[in-house]
Amino acid sequence: MSTAFKRMQAVKQHLSPEQEYASAVDPVASMNEERAKAAFDIRAMTILMDGGEKNTILKEKIMQELERDPLFKMHDIHDISKDELRERTMEKFRSMLHHLQNESVETFKKRMEIVSLIDPGFWTRFGVHYGLFVGALQSNATPGQLGYWFQKGALSLSGFIGCFAMTELGHGSNIPGLETTATFDEASDTFVIHTPTLTATKWWIGGAAHSATHSAVFAQLIVKGKRYGTKCFVVPLRDPKTYNTLPGINIGDIGKKMGRDGIDNGWIQFTSVSIPRSYLLQKHTKVSRTGDVVEPKLQQLTYGALLQGRVTMVADSGHFSKKALSIAIRYAAVRRQFSNSGSNGVETKLLDYPIHQRRLMPLLSQTFAMLFTGTEMTEMYNVMMSRLEGAKEGDADLDEVIEVLKETHSTSAGLKAFCTWNCLSTIEACRQACGGHGYSSYTGLAAMYQDFAVQCTWEGDNTILTLQLGRYLISSYREAVSGKKLSPGVGYLNNLDQLIGKQCSVNKMEDILSPQVITEGWQVVCANVVRNASLEFEACLKKGMQADDAYEECSQSRLYAAKLHSFGYLFNRFADGVAKVTGDLHNILIKVCLLYGLYSIEENAGAFLQYQYFTPAQIEFIRSSVNSLCKDVRDQAIPLVDSFNLSDYMINSPLGRKDGNVYVHYFDQVKRSNPQGEHPYFDKLIKPLIEREVGYDEDEDEEAGLEDSDDDEDY
Amino acid sequence: MSTAFKRMQAVKQHLSPEQEYASAVDPVASMNEERAKAAFDIRAMTILMDGGEKNTILKEKIMQELERDPLFKMHDIHDISKDELRERTMEKFRSMLHHLQNESVETFKKRMEIVSLIDPGFWTRFGVHYGLFVGALQSNATPGQLGYWFQKGALSLSGFIGCFAMTELGHGSNIPGLETTATFDEASDTFVIHTPTLTATKWWIGGAAHSATHSAVFAQLIVKGKRYGTKCFVVPLRDPKTYNTLPGINIGDIGKKMGRDGIDNGWIQFTSVSIPRSYLLQKHTKVSRTGDVVEPKLQQLTYGALLQGRVTMVADSGHFSKKALSIAIRYAAVRRQFSNSGSNGVETKLLDYPIHQRRLMPLLSQTFAMLFTGTEMTEMYNVMMSRLEGAKEGDADLDEVIEVLKETHSTSAGLKAFCTWNCLSTIEACRQACGGHGYSSYTGLAAMYQDFAVQCTWEGDNTILTLQLGRYLISSYREAVSGKKLSPGVGYLNNLDQLIGKQCSVNKMEDILSPQVITEGWQVVCANVVRNASLEFEACLKKGMQADDAYEECSQSRLYAAKLHSFGYLFNRFADGVAKVTGDLHNILIKVCLLYGLYSIEENAGAFLQYQYFTPAQIEFIRSSVNSLCKDVRDQAIPLVDSFNLSDYMINSPLGRKDGNVYVHYFDQVKRSNPQGEHPYFDKLIKPLIEREVGYDEDEDEEAGLEDSDDDEDY
Repeated sequence: MSTAFKRMQAVKQHLSPEQEYASAVDPVASMNEERAKAAFDIRAMTILMDGGEKNTILKEKIMQELERDPLFKMHDIHDISKDELRERTMEKFRSMLHHLQNESVETFKKRMEIVSLIDPGFWTRFGVHYGLFVGALQSNATPGQLGYWFQKGALSLSGFIGCFAMTELGHGSNIPGLETTATFDEASDTFVIHTPTLTATKWWIGGAAHSATHSAVFAQLIVKGKRYGTKCFVVPLRDPKTYNTLPGINIGDIGKKMGRDGIDNGWIQFTSVSIPRSYLLQKHTKVSRTGDVVEPKLQQLTYGALLQGRVTMVADSGHFSKKALSIAIRYAAVRRQFSNSGSNGVETKLLDYPIHQRRLMPLLSQTFAMLFTGTEMTEMYNVMMSRLEGAKEGDADLDEVIEVLKETHSTSAGLKAFCTWNCLSTIEACRQACGGHGYSSYTGLAAMYQDFAVQCTWEGDNTILTLQLGRYLISSYREAVSGKKLSPGVGYLNNLDQLIGKQCSVNKMEDILSPQVITEGWQVVCANVVRNASLEFEACLKKGMQADDAYEECSQSRLYAAKLHSFGYLFNRFADGVAKVTGDLHNILIKVCLLYGLYSIEENAGAFLQYQYFTPAQIEFIRSSVNSLCKDVRDQAIPLVDSFNLSDYMINSPLGRKDGNVYVHYFDQVKRSNPQGEHPYFDKLIKPLIEREVGYDEDEDEEAGLEDSDDDEDY
Repeated sequence: MSTAFKRMQAVKQHLSPEQEYASAVDPVASMNEERAKAAFDIRAMTILMDGGEKNTILKEKIMQELERDPLFKMHDIHDISKDELRERTMEKFRSMLHHLQNESVETFKKRMEIVSLIDPGFWTRFGVHYGLFVGALQSNATPGQLGYWFQKGALSLSGFIGCFAMTELGHGSNIPGLETTATFDEASDTFVIHTPTLTATKWWIGGAAHSATHSAVFAQLIVKGKRYGTKCFVVPLRDPKTYNTLPGINIGDIGKKMGRDGIDNGWIQFTSVSIPRSYLLQKHTKVSRTGDVVEPKLQQLTYGALLQGRVTMVADSGHFSKKALSIAIRYAAVRRQFSNSGSNGVETKLLDYPIHQRRLMPLLSQTFAMLFTGTEMTEMYNVMMSRLEGAKEGDADLDEVIEVLKETHSTSAGLKAFCTWNCLSTIEACRQACGGHGYSSYTGLAAMYQDFAVQCTWEGDNTILTLQLGRYLISSYREAVSGKKLSPGVGYLNNLDQLIGKQCSVNKMEDILSPQVITEGWQVVCANVVRNASLEFEACLKKGMQADDAYEECSQSRLYAAKLHSFGYLFNRFADGVAKVTGDLHNILIKVCLLYGLYSIEENAGAFLQYQYFTPAQIEFIRSSVNSLCKDVRDQAIPLVDSFNLSDYMINSPLGRKDGNVYVHYFDQVKRSNPQGEHPYFDKLIKPLIEREVGYDEDEDEEAGLEDSDDDEDY
């Protein structure tokens, strides 16, 4: 690579001063210059992060297929209306169904991952059926029921599209509090599904407005006057021949949203809708012909499938961050602004400004942290699911399985929240780093923000999920104190004695630049904040509070503990991942990893000083080390972004074009999207305005017969 | 007020258990219950914050007029297309022009302030002419030129609409680096305006796409081959009779943006466009008939008008935060989620959750801080402008005037950045605090975010502005060290000896809850960080760097210093304001003020521990004090929001309705905006999809004449 750079330098020596100036400000030349700096094998990095060459090649194949598929054209996406977008989103079902039926599950999952980055709205709409509806069947239906609905068309989408009706107008996170009722009518052997109040209206139901024939409805099971809690029922919504709604079904469109307008979210009201008893999915809770209800002993085991979404969102946060950073960093490599002394009027690249490095390099490092964590989280989930699938009551290792489930549940909750928040901030920071152009729809970051924002709310509100992790940390702490050996993610709580009060014991400042020191620092800080939250919780208990109330009372400490734990967790995953890498890839990744570690400490300096792990002088050293690591990583920023290997089609932003020719592409895009032509409303609106009779009303002030003069103010 | 509450309680005692449950979950009753808690006179608070009853009455008058003006209908704003929105925005000119010509400047300013909260896109489009274009004339034209353009219609908008062409595709913040040229042609006594490159294309020009007849163009003045820097020219763009562009003018539409689509931003290319020499605005730089150029000695004095926008944005950040918080806090007062022990199944109000108080109450306190600061900033600006207007070369107090200008310039730069960032985060936090409903366009926060986001970039990129303040702080520090008495905003730097190393010296923890202690704490921390940045800067100079390069090198420390200075500055303005208030208003405001002070310390705990103003134990106390202050302020949250006095029309969100009947209003809005009707694309798209012939391609796999069997893999 450095050969290419030398060649370029050699070419430069034959240029005239004017040519040299032009070449210096030419964005393509600027980009090539950056690319020539690569100190590692970009392809090898891509393969490493993809988890093997096979995956890289598969991804490239899918990207190419999508780019060439006319149904997946994306260049005009910012200028079509919500209605057009919804139609186009529906059209895409065709090509995805073809692939779904003709490729392996693994390949199709990879395809969905890529599609989600290209068109999050379509991904959601398709996912509503195959992820949520089919997922609800798989989690809640008996094998016989599953076969029945698959045979009815739920798998092939023949005469059948499903949706997932959980949330209500008045109820989101509190699923047990849903109001919709499903009352067993023994006489007719049916359940009556009913929306008793306005707030019980099913709300936000993806696919309800225009797509679905059937719905998985979560409703309060009532048998013989007794409530059994929220269960899942299949309720037909529309006649698949006409798409007319069925009797008792009232459906409306939720309309315009912040983003993802390709998905037709709707509301549903049920008015005494009878469904056969067999439409209650009875894998867990069973209702007999005579109204006997059998409830499962291990409800917990059913939660596993619900975690899939959260787990995916950790990796997705990494992927969307890659896309946003590809745009902002490539733009910063070619955008020039202000000249410094001795630059002969050539303006400086944004990327050469220390402050711009500070804006983007820590986010780049955080992205790698999320990618490593996402990979590990997925593995953790897969291991858990395979253990869970075989698990049943009475198993010898059942306790252990449930322990693993609890850990995965809490960890995925906390990381989903932490990473989606990180990603949303990254997108916004990238947008702002593109200056005014970040506000243009065509540069892609605005829509990325609007589409991504919902990830902080759905599949569990981020604040609530963070608090769940906090609760798990408190209970883990209390278990550790009582002598229990904890699972690895919270294993540091087994070393409380060593960690509480521990100070950083390096001989010289430079020794702080080590994954071991940073790891220890995070363990010390996390042990302290988890302990504080736990003590606060216990103090509330001592005051006589119920456990739930005590948890609420200490929620700020819980949130804080969970946030810091997540920082430490991400750093550990990153450091572990980097430790397995060698050679040039290791050389750059270790810098990126240290940057993440020190940046995360700097961001939480208050905690490190509070528990006195670092001294003020050490924190100062860390601050200046972040500066210099930003410089180091900046040097390899374009090669690192290149290693993300997202095609221009995927990135879909003129500012993020690989060739660096940003202004040409941007101008072309704006012109193509907004052809010059007739003035749309000159005659109608502007002409009458600017040609109107102008005269101040004062001038026309007539006395209208009244004889008073204006001067008579005392009158 | 508490009488009303008692009365309500009394009424409750006559309710049956079912009635009581229904009344407990009724959102209107929940809202009334909150309103009844008011411990201060809401009207008096409104008047205080409005700066007098006259202002309150005027605002109410204007709100009512706008609400009843059919041109200002806003209920359907989320469902109209960009093209429709642009037309509607243009239509509004009519009614605004009427008011402009018939009311006092003060009244009209208040109207614009209110309009900006209702329809930021229209406010921008109208402001492009009257703020930017006319402002450019006022700042740059001689009295004769001003009269000429006013007489041509620039004031009455007759046959004339102006725009402001400063930024270019390749140039934003660096105004001296603009590429557009204005070359004097002595032979014809004209300037030739020219766009030499693609990157010189004027970009983002509000009003250019469809509105403007004329433009204030910033271009490089070139006379006899010599460059004189960027000057301002009036360039006609379109024939006002036909709106055809004039020869040499090429205009296009910038198209879709993140928000504010009512404004028709465009791009402009000039191809050797000749304008009379007199179209150079010659208040400062003059070019004679024979090409003699006279440059002004005190260019600085021309900057004053440019600050108007920034100053306004400080107060605006407070106003938009009020709007966002009105929605999120009112919703939190009626939304219920999960029940706690002993609540008989009645779910808890969001506002009663300590974590929800933590999410919103500090932002509420920050809003008051921004409002107090905005008021003072406006006064500071007005004082400066009145001094500046009279100032001319040779004045005895000129140095002092320039000092005031510098302070206003830097302070407004830093506060514009700090407050717009605060406001944007507040809007997003409010959106997320509304859960899923925050993602609906109809609840208003999504569009508010999208519209507001540009405030962090225009009128000076926030990062660059923050760095400007940082630069001012460094130079102030150095002046202070050299013995100069500084202006009040940075006056603490005159007390470095007392502040550096100072620790909080309270006798007991509770004494921290005092504006004096918090003010001192901020002064100590700010003195330290400004000093650090200055020492870093000086070290760079010692290494032989040029001053500009040295400033870049220490930019992270500069940014950090400016950020902390802004926190302290806001707290001081708030505390000063509260000190002037008495009685019940003081009682609540002092709590809000302490909450802001302690929250801002908690947010920056790292700095307070770093410089050891507070001990770790004191920081812990501050953390728990923020919790209890959040509870206190939560108690008065609805009365405080009511005191913002924004009408339902202004807030334009069903979740923020004053009556609290959120679900009814929300459902009505969604139904009205999305009437139920025929399926838009069932026959076209869904029917062919779900009725297609389903069969896996494998099943149809034909050998097509080939005799190989699939088993022959070794073949």
